[in-house]
Amino acid sequence: MGYKNWSYDTLNRLCIDAFQNFGFNEGESRIITDVLLLSDLYGIESHGMQRMVRYYMGIKKGLIDVHAKPEIVFETPVSAVIDGHGGMGQLIGHRAMEIAIEKARKSGMAMVTARNSNHYGIAGYYAKMACDQGLIGFSFTNSAAIMVPTFGRMAMLGSNPIACSMPADPYPFFFDASTTVVTRGKVEIYNKTGEPMPEGWTLDKDGHPTTNAPEVLKNIVEKNGGGIMPLGGSGETLGSHKGYGFGMLSEIFSSILSSGTTSNHTMQGNKAGICHGFAAVDPAIFGDPMEIKEGLSKYLRELRDSPKAEGQPRIYTHGEKEIEAVAEMMKNGIPVNENTLLEILDMCEFLKMDFSAYFGDYRPEKNTEMYKGIF
Amino acid sequence: MGYKNWSYDTLNRLCIDAFQNFGFNEGESRIITDVLLLSDLYGIESHGMQRMVRYYMGIKKGLIDVHAKPEIVFETPVSAVIDGHGGMGQLIGHRAMEIAIEKARKSGMAMVTARNSNHYGIAGYYAKMACDQGLIGFSFTNSAAIMVPTFGRMAMLGSNPIACSMPADPYPFFFDASTTVVTRGKVEIYNKTGEPMPEGWTLDKDGHPTTNAPEVLKNIVEKNGGGIMPLGGSGETLGSHKGYGFGMLSEIFSSILSSGTTSNHTMQGNKAGICHGFAAVDPAIFGDPMEIKEGLSKYLRELRDSPKAEGQPRIYTHGEKEIEAVAEMMKNGIPVNENTLLEILDMCEFLKMDFSAYFGDYRPEKNTEMYKGIF
Repeated sequence: MGYKNWSYDTLNRLCIDAFQNFGFNEGESRIITDVLLLSDLYGIESHGMQRMVRYYMGIKKGLIDVHAKPEIVFETPVSAVIDGHGGMGQLIGHRAMEIAIEKARKSGMAMVTARNSNHYGIAGYYAKMACDQGLIGFSFTNSAAIMVPTFGRMAMLGSNPIACSMPADPYPFFFDASTTVVTRGKVEIYNKTGEPMPEGWTLDKDGHPTTNAPEVLKNIVEKNGGGIMPLGGSGETLGSHKGYGFGMLSEIFSSILSSGTTSNHTMQGNKAGICHGFAAVDPAIFGDPMEIKEGLSKYLRELRDSPKAEGQPRIYTHGEKEIEAVAEMMKNGIPVNENTLLEILDMCEFLKMDFSAYFGDYRPEKNTEMYKGIF
Repeated sequence: MGYKNWSYDTLNRLCIDAFQNFGFNEGESRIITDVLLLSDLYGIESHGMQRMVRYYMGIKKGLIDVHAKPEIVFETPVSAVIDGHGGMGQLIGHRAMEIAIEKARKSGMAMVTARNSNHYGIAGYYAKMACDQGLIGFSFTNSAAIMVPTFGRMAMLGSNPIACSMPADPYPFFFDASTTVVTRGKVEIYNKTGEPMPEGWTLDKDGHPTTNAPEVLKNIVEKNGGGIMPLGGSGETLGSHKGYGFGMLSEIFSSILSSGTTSNHTMQGNKAGICHGFAAVDPAIFGDPMEIKEGLSKYLRELRDSPKAEGQPRIYTHGEKEIEAVAEMMKNGIPVNENTLLEILDMCEFLKMDFSAYFGDYRPEKNTEMYKGIF
């Protein structure tokens, strides 16, 4: 699979135009694009341009309602519950976090949950929104069931990420992790390459470990059983029950506290039913925010400076790789998979957009390994 | 190592008497005992009677100040920061969670952090306090450094558990997990038996995986390097950076937000400097709490009823094993390790308490494998 680099500006222009052509207004299109491209800028290919096809298909199939407006259905000074009415996940997420930030500014902390949404991109985007304003941000989401609980053989939880971001110098703490060992995107990459996956990632339809990516994806789509292991693997020896438990926390903060749809019941009929959770905490409720920030910055420095394992050049703190990726991507462009560009070509044709207005003479090669857009 | 079962009442009486003899008043002694024995009742031997020796030694050495009273040093309607002044962790934790519950009752949610504390027992105890009152409870703590960050070779984070409990029928969701693959207690058990540990738990002083428990414990005590891996192991393939990130969340909620001592600086001189964090959230800020509880209960039932992996009889939800352990322990008594009873015998002699008033004619056998009380 070949990659070709494109400037942030090119992809930004393409995305904004595409979302406007799908029927979103300019402000909405900018938000959706911002979420999408932050993922690529952070080096998280799976949730960036690569995902465009999902939104394209989601809108085409009517899973995503372009005209839905998020509605507050329950509210207190420290909380809100939003019904997304099947709208675009990024818009629901962005609005929900705005409300959480606003309430946290007044009350010190706040939590907003959302139901009847769709995929919202990288969980970390929303945590970062709070962090950019000097608050501690959290973001949670469920998803189509993909995680098999410890000792089970059917996917019952989503990839259920937990994201947290908090101000620090020289760059913020930024943590965004699925509570599965890996996300579905990584399995899809092995599906494309045809190589066996590393041991300890996935389960076959009977609940036994497997390294066969095509089989795992097929079984998930056909709901035959199997899926991805929780962080910690499949048995208790390496802590599978812990990953499963962290997945439960994400499920509680999204579907349970929004009275929404749990991961195992999402994607039924014409409804995705994805749920999210957002929290913002003002560090000033614990003292001088500058001192607290300095405390975190010092600890992060100590971690980075601590002795390395033999053969390892570096210890990272969370968010460091992302900051470096942004610099790299802004300088050398964002690498986009040719298969992804084929999907974008197809989308441009559907939207009657001129592909060459963004990509010039370049045409992606037709490729039999093209991502099939399993949805 | 032999175990002998003792009734809850016997151990409860012993602990309350012992803590009173150490200088705590009756109410304080009951709280400390309650935390300690809930751990044994839940089948978490490592944090129950087995830990008595740590408190005994901690008080003897002056690490734990029996007369210290937790002091609120910063406060808002949704938060508080407590200085524990080196007091008993359980008393500081109990008081902090009481304040969090009180504030959450009024404001909907609240968070309390504590610094200058000591080990506080199982994190889950405090989460359960909130849950027992119909709230969602969270509890976090740092500890002496034991977790080696991804690509590192020195322990820089504690076992840094995250606990959460939320009302559900027929029993609550109760999750309490260290963010390391395993806790130090498990390594100590392999140290006693002399068997190699499972692969994927610990690192030697150079940061390479090892299964040699005595070596790991020796290196930790002597600060030579090495320690326990984060949940997810030592490399990124199985998600080490995720376990390390969850450990960071626990560190942020305890030491960073209390402006206290990070795990890597605890246990210096005559100060433990352990920090905790507590949160309570009233589910009523998201709608009808009974409906929310029913939503969680339904999901937990679906998880337990979902298809099992081939050869596995059962899928657990978090808290189920603990509920069953309580029934078993109340019926058949709490198994206490003979080595632990030797430590208790020693403590009774120190406190001039009559061991036989609790254990009758029984005398534990002197055993060369006795736990050395590495502290």
